[in-house]
Amino acid sequence: MSGSIFGKNFTISTWGESHGKAIGVVIDGCPAGLPLEESDIQKDLDLRKPGTSALTTKRKESDTCHILSGVFEGVTTGTPISIVIYNEDHHSADYSDIADIFRPGHADYTFFSKYGIRDYRGGGRSSARETAARVAAGAVAKKILAEIGVKVTAYTRSIGEIEISSFDEELLYKTDTRMPDKEADAKANEFIKSCMAENDSCGGVIECVIKNLPAGVGETVFDKLDSSLAKAIVSIGAVKGIEFGAGFGASLLKGSENNDSFANENGKIKKLTNNAGGILGGMSDGSDIVFRAAIKPTPSISRIQKTVDINGEEQEIAIKGRHDPIIVPRAVPVVEAMAAICVVDLLFSAMLSQMKNIKSFWI
Amino acid sequence: MSGSIFGKNFTISTWGESHGKAIGVVIDGCPAGLPLEESDIQKDLDLRKPGTSALTTKRKESDTCHILSGVFEGVTTGTPISIVIYNEDHHSADYSDIADIFRPGHADYTFFSKYGIRDYRGGGRSSARETAARVAAGAVAKKILAEIGVKVTAYTRSIGEIEISSFDEELLYKTDTRMPDKEADAKANEFIKSCMAENDSCGGVIECVIKNLPAGVGETVFDKLDSSLAKAIVSIGAVKGIEFGAGFGASLLKGSENNDSFANENGKIKKLTNNAGGILGGMSDGSDIVFRAAIKPTPSISRIQKTVDINGEEQEIAIKGRHDPIIVPRAVPVVEAMAAICVVDLLFSAMLSQMKNIKSFWI
Amino acid sequence: MSGSIFGKNFTISTWGESHGKAIGVVIDGCPAGLPLEESDIQKDLDLRKPGTSALTTKRKESDTCHILSGVFEGVTTGTPISIVIYNEDHHSADYSDIADIFRPGHADYTFFSKYGIRDYRGGGRSSARETAARVAAGAVAKKILAEIGVKVTAYTRSIGEIEISSFDEELLYKTDTRMPDKEADAKANEFIKSCMAENDSCGGVIECVIKNLPAGVGETVFDKLDSSLAKAIVSIGAVKGIEFGAGFGASLLKGSENNDSFANENGKIKKLTNNAGGILGGMSDGSDIVFRAAIKPTPSISRIQKTVDINGEEQEIAIKGRHDPIIVPRAVPVVEAMAAICVVDLLFSAMLSQMKNIKSFWI
Amino acid sequence: MSGSIFGKNFTISTWGESHGKAIGVVIDGCPAGLPLEESDIQKDLDLRKPGTSALTTKRKESDTCHILSGVFEGVTTGTPISIVIYNEDHHSADYSDIADIFRPGHADYTFFSKYGIRDYRGGGRSSARETAARVAAGAVAKKILAEIGVKVTAYTRSIGEIEISSFDEELLYKTDTRMPDKEADAKANEFIKSCMAENDSCGGVIECVIKNLPAGVGETVFDKLDSSLAKAIVSIGAVKGIEFGAGFGASLLKGSENNDSFANENGKIKKLTNNAGGILGGMSDGSDIVFRAAIKPTPSISRIQKTVDINGEEQEIAIKGRHDPIIVPRAVPVVEAMAAICVVDLLFSAMLSQMKNIKSFWI
Repeated sequence: MSGSIFGKNFTISTWGESHGKAIGVVIDGCPAGLPLEESDIQKDLDLRKPGTSALTTKRKESDTCHILSGVFEGVTTGTPISIVIYNEDHHSADYSDIADIFRPGHADYTFFSKYGIRDYRGGGRSSARETAARVAAGAVAKKILAEIGVKVTAYTRSIGEIEISSFDEELLYKTDTRMPDKEADAKANEFIKSCMAENDSCGGVIECVIKNLPAGVGETVFDKLDSSLAKAIVSIGAVKGIEFGAGFGASLLKGSENNDSFANENGKIKKLTNNAGGILGGMSDGSDIVFRAAIKPTPSISRIQKTVDINGEEQEIAIKGRHDPIIVPRAVPVVEAMAAICVVDLLFSAMLSQMKNIKSFWI
Repeated sequence: MSGSIFGKNFTISTWGESHGKAIGVVIDGCPAGLPLEESDIQKDLDLRKPGTSALTTKRKESDTCHILSGVFEGVTTGTPISIVIYNEDHHSADYSDIADIFRPGHADYTFFSKYGIRDYRGGGRSSARETAARVAAGAVAKKILAEIGVKVTAYTRSIGEIEISSFDEELLYKTDTRMPDKEADAKANEFIKSCMAENDSCGGVIECVIKNLPAGVGETVFDKLDSSLAKAIVSIGAVKGIEFGAGFGASLLKGSENNDSFANENGKIKKLTNNAGGILGGMSDGSDIVFRAAIKPTPSISRIQKTVDINGEEQEIAIKGRHDPIIVPRAVPVVEAMAAICVVDLLFSAMLSQMKNIKSFWI
Repeated sequence: MSGSIFGKNFTISTWGESHGKAIGVVIDGCPAGLPLEESDIQKDLDLRKPGTSALTTKRKESDTCHILSGVFEGVTTGTPISIVIYNEDHHSADYSDIADIFRPGHADYTFFSKYGIRDYRGGGRSSARETAARVAAGAVAKKILAEIGVKVTAYTRSIGEIEISSFDEELLYKTDTRMPDKEADAKANEFIKSCMAENDSCGGVIECVIKNLPAGVGETVFDKLDSSLAKAIVSIGAVKGIEFGAGFGASLLKGSENNDSFANENGKIKKLTNNAGGILGGMSDGSDIVFRAAIKPTPSISRIQKTVDINGEEQEIAIKGRHDPIIVPRAVPVVEAMAAICVVDLLFSAMLSQMKNIKSFWI
Repeated sequence: MSGSIFGKNFTISTWGESHGKAIGVVIDGCPAGLPLEESDIQKDLDLRKPGTSALTTKRKESDTCHILSGVFEGVTTGTPISIVIYNEDHHSADYSDIADIFRPGHADYTFFSKYGIRDYRGGGRSSARETAARVAAGAVAKKILAEIGVKVTAYTRSIGEIEISSFDEELLYKTDTRMPDKEADAKANEFIKSCMAENDSCGGVIECVIKNLPAGVGETVFDKLDSSLAKAIVSIGAVKGIEFGAGFGASLLKGSENNDSFANENGKIKKLTNNAGGILGGMSDGSDIVFRAAIKPTPSISRIQKTVDINGEEQEIAIKGRHDPIIVPRAVPVVEAMAAICVVDLLFSAMLSQMKNIKSFWI
């Protein structure tokens, strides 16, 4: 197998299991000269780490990151940046009850089918814990983007049927649901708690907006901005769909409704609407990049479910332990991270698009 | 720039512009020993080619394919397969009216922003014509899949608000809308014609089902089956979203509703439902793979639209010429092709997952 | 299988068999804005094509190239450049005598072992003919390099025991041996003719010099300038070794002899010697890049040789037909081409090494 | 920058600087089911580590490895294997004297040219210390090869002018010079000591033999077995050349001398000689794979050398500290490691060459 590497010029390689010794990421392709400290990364990891609200698992992980290479005297050197996060809580749990049984909605059965073996402790490699490594790499990508004014912002758009109806930037990462709308947040909290009371879980939709991305980022055929983002985001566990701009809604529109007209706004070319979600022909068009990702409800629930064990015997299972009743809030920084990583990679490629850039660089 | 190559072990590299001399594809990684003739490919190209119904452009292209390498005495040799399709209709049109103007909903503006130059004849590289090369490569991928019993089937699920309510396998590729439901097809035809009468266009949703895929296909972190399909499908022009299984609907379900229970059906492990769309943890779970892609309405409409020219001057444009009033029917074989290409690539990787496979192969 | 693609940001994908319909290459990643015509490519192809001197095969191939995509109005557009060369002389030969027999020194046996099938007509994919596609791509790479003043020059350094003792730039590609030394050329001609008289063949060494390459090109660990050139050059059939600067000779020197001292020459940092061949730590050091490739004697000889057939039966074979008595002269432009392709790819990567470059590009 | 990743299906990603906190490697693509313990890796690391003989630096590094992921209950799981080696001796040295000066023969100048910054402590990323990570990954590759009977063996062939004239397998890794010839070892020891007495260093040639590799490994055009090995080996710091089989010597032979005849030996196809070094057309031919790598003398010498500082001022430098007088012996396990990694990667690709393999796997 393989497939734990993402990106072409800005490449991340994640590793680690939920209950192994550590998880981590190697970033190959971060340019030299970026100021970088562990606290830059820790800040984002803290937004994802468990145990920060009533809505998350009580697993205790400080998720403290260590930069082991690639930074010298506070600045990146252009060499691979290795970041490690030691698993602190990996001894405590007793997983013997799920060692031989396939949890519905999890990768247990598929992992076993593929590899003939699996690290059954807490999902192993398929655990949401793997996403901490993505967040760490994303923090580096976001620092690169910040240097050129590009900003990636994700937030919860809906939980179950409850959708935000306003957007208050001040509330980003301030509500437990990650909804930037006080009222929706309150309703969603209640909804989640009702699910918890029923030993059940729920899902939602995360929206992500990328601001100030120059036009022309994304390649024209396979490595488009949208196709690359689609891969980046759908690779996050629990994501069951992605749509850009008007998305599935565009299938209901007529061409005259869906097309975004261009206009000249004080000498700058602008679009009057943004059904395209900021992407035309796979390239950024200078508007905000907008996409939404559907997140399924947490598969780990303590209700009784029907399943089979590794011998094919039918079994009932009620998943004990500490599980998030909803994945959405903790997935918000992961979406931000993957979007940032993907955009940095395509920004780099886009620099190589014209001979005049090559010439002005080398002469 | 780059980004016209897709796949790792089964790699396709497409090339060609709408109104250049030809378009084509090089397939690197097709195993030796696959019977292959031009007619195998032509069959699929004919399903995509224009001019076959009242719902498509009248551009005349026979889309005749030529295999230039990689096949010897009717069988693949393991070397790259080069397939070329000459553009026949590339002289006729007069594109001078759109040479300096950015068509809304097209890649004109982004292409120009990125490259500082563009082949303005009919969309150039961003034309839907590029997808003929994908269909050609997909025909090869589908032949490989057929040898192991895997079948990829795409069809139109909805056009505008009209959705299929039955599935008649006999109707696949038999209706102009590519809807496998006579009634829905009739309604959709009417709807499309009403759009045409208004000089407008419409969109829809394509559904794709992959049958008999063994469990365990797809890598576990970035190169998942769903994330790879997401990239493959979203890379098709006009696709604005993709969802797997319950998809965006999963965000509304509770865990107890969304989880698919496992059961033992005559000694075989089966799932009782398929909200997962056949993918758990990024790997196929032995059920049908099911996904849907949202297709926007054709951006080329003869209605008057507001836009700007390459000097930033505001202009009005009414796009003349021969355009599909809806992209969906002709995109159906393209979705099938890209899904097949993606699955073959991941099937190959999955063969390398266990030491016992390595050993039994080499000893 | 796969492996017919080379490069990361400047990617070439070659295809085609010796006696198939055509051979060709797709270049993905050529920046937009490079003036390019077929004659730019033809010029280099003519240096490689057969039948131009007494020292080459009499196979008749005009090796006329056709650019099928990626160029619009005489300038590259940033999209893939597809170049095709039709095989003209592919009907005439009768290969039935070697269809079932493994020629010593050729890929017949290994190809059959790997694929279980082979296109036995003239070497198929393993024919030197494949290198025409590399030369075509190399012509594009050399045009890119020319725009920034970098020049790649290859020539014959030795044939058998005969080595050049002077270097006359005027003679480049003017002598049949490709030796830039009149005297050595005369001697080598005689030597080659004596080999031909004995129905035998000979080999030699090609040297390549890359001038004006800025310091810092090449990545620091695996994708070094020298390791990448090594792959590029050794991938040319018949190359049995490569060495950089002092090369194998460096193994005989002491550190104090082999180290190149740095000095300040009118304000510029220069090296006083160039045992390193212009590469330190895998990166160009601002001096000339210098390497040499060992070329084995042509394996196709009309002398009787012992071998086996596909049934394992021992056989004798005398290879008839039109074969180069020496590969070296026609390999000279191939070495130039592969070196240029490799350097362009690494030049592009090197542009992404520093944050200040990223910032100055995007802000 | 990037370029710290090697391999396609068996991928290694190394990281770490000489005097940073740690070095390490992530292996992505190791199949599940390989028994693996830290001691398997430590064994090879101990062959490379410093301080084991009079011929190596006295830097104290136990080079203790830690497997952080990818292994569960003593067996690989198919997920990435992260191996870390903490740098123990990274505080002691005082590097202020070389912080601003470019050491001849080192990557100081090129690193600074490329990145505008460098970790000057002991070579940083360009230090030979990076190769410990390669050896760790190589140990895993060698275990995979061992399971199918393939064996990679490297040893010192020559040091300065002293060449081995016999090969005693028992002596592998038993002599300080890594020469499998007692007499040559004795002479070489004396020679090295004489260099040390002169505050100088010396180089040599490493030979590597790969036994029992089945025929057909290696792709046919760019990713050949020899071209891939060339990249793998030349990417090791200090390697200035590589040759296969008769190598540069083949350039002096005639076709009739260089071609290896095939014969039938008890029903098996064998070659009567091995000038090809076991590779024909880029694929293994069933004979031993044989190649040699030229290693330059250690650039760090305590003799006075001329150089410049980062301001371009001319300076004299005598490199103090603990340096190997010869790189060759410690590079032997690195050559073995890189060869093994490369071969595993190509073995995996070769499994995908024929449809009958695909079919027998999946049906």
